[in-house]
Amino acid sequence: MDNVIQQIIQFRDERDWKQFHNSKDLAISLTLEASELLENFQWKDSEVAVNEKMDQIKDELADVLIYALMLAHDLDINIESAILNKLKKNEVKYPIDKFKGTSKKYTDG
Amino acid sequence: MDNVIQQIIQFRDERDWKQFHNSKDLAISLTLEASELLENFQWKDSEVAVNEKMDQIKDELADVLIYALMLAHDLDINIESAILNKLKKNEVKYPIDKFKGTSKKYTDG
Amino acid sequence: MDNVIQQIIQFRDERDWKQFHNSKDLAISLTLEASELLENFQWKDSEVAVNEKMDQIKDELADVLIYALMLAHDLDINIESAILNKLKKNEVKYPIDKFKGTSKKYTDG
Amino acid sequence: MDNVIQQIIQFRDERDWKQFHNSKDLAISLTLEASELLENFQWKDSEVAVNEKMDQIKDELADVLIYALMLAHDLDINIESAILNKLKKNEVKYPIDKFKGTSKKYTDG
Repeated sequence: MDNVIQQIIQFRDERDWKQFHNSKDLAISLTLEASELLENFQWKDSEVAVNEKMDQIKDELADVLIYALMLAHDLDINIESAILNKLKKNEVKYPIDKFKGTSKKYTDG
Repeated sequence: MDNVIQQIIQFRDERDWKQFHNSKDLAISLTLEASELLENFQWKDSEVAVNEKMDQIKDELADVLIYALMLAHDLDINIESAILNKLKKNEVKYPIDKFKGTSKKYTDG
Repeated sequence: MDNVIQQIIQFRDERDWKQFHNSKDLAISLTLEASELLENFQWKDSEVAVNEKMDQIKDELADVLIYALMLAHDLDINIESAILNKLKKNEVKYPIDKFKGTSKKYTDG
Repeated sequence: MDNVIQQIIQFRDERDWKQFHNSKDLAISLTLEASELLENFQWKDSEVAVNEKMDQIKDELADVLIYALMLAHDLDINIESAILNKLKKNEVKYPIDKFKGTSKKYTDG
């Protein structure tokens, strides 16, 4: 993954685009790319979308990840430890014995 | 990263939540988490937000990545090759000699 | 509707919040409220969501409209003529004889 | 406004598109249009965006309103009373004497 992150940053640096990339605008970009990903699922069932739009879904998910990794890089966030940290918080919030097999989390969230 | 992805999936499987996670709803979740990340930047300058809200930004970015990695896992998408593939397309779309140091990409996008 | 818009602006002015409301942040707020509306539909079918979450849906849709009307007010946009204008463009883009009863618009969009 | 809503629904009915418009997908559409509106503000200051992109902002804001009004129509929500209702709740939540001139709402929200 380090190599991938390095290539993302290299892509940006070769174009001198860092000057436009404050964190607020990167966070905006992340929501825009997430919307473009979601657009592939609009007006259809999940499975139909996956069958018809796999290439676009792959590309848009890549864009989401590119902006997420860029933002993490700029803010000096180690993504692996950020994720593992958040998982630990979620384990406390959603103990297995209370939440196993129930969507209560979601419907009462 | 493989180890992190495995822990994300284990968290889900221990709670039997896969049954709720069709790709369309995961894509929805991704936009919701991206919005929660962006909320930390609302009504303020980028730097102020980063100073005041670093912990929340870290946690929300982790949530974005968790859903992105889950979706990739369910759709059998290799994220490293998806990202590198997209970077190659972007290199064709934005050749260095035409786009270096210009925000034209963004303002005319 | 004029009376409603006036009450929205009065609510803001009584709290002296105009100073925080530049158009970019209002546009951000609009996406955040649209996400909060969408959250009510997460992990469930449309009809189930409507049955279980009608009050929340109503409140979140109101928030979307409040920010949309605020932004229109600040930018001096007449919403009725903006909508009618856009409908005319859409009529040209989607002529009835080509698009009646087909979701082609959506799947090929 | 009633006349505008009627024309939105007529546009849809002439194309027989109601069949695709469940409320969940309309809520998705609303977030997508809100993102397209926000895209006009990406990578630039609010005022610059307003100067450069006024026509697009107007059109995208119209799209947001079209989907919001469609959703309200389908769910039989009276938008004026929904907004006034929400404003009353907000008045209780943000009493003038505690929130006048402070962005506390936003930074501690």
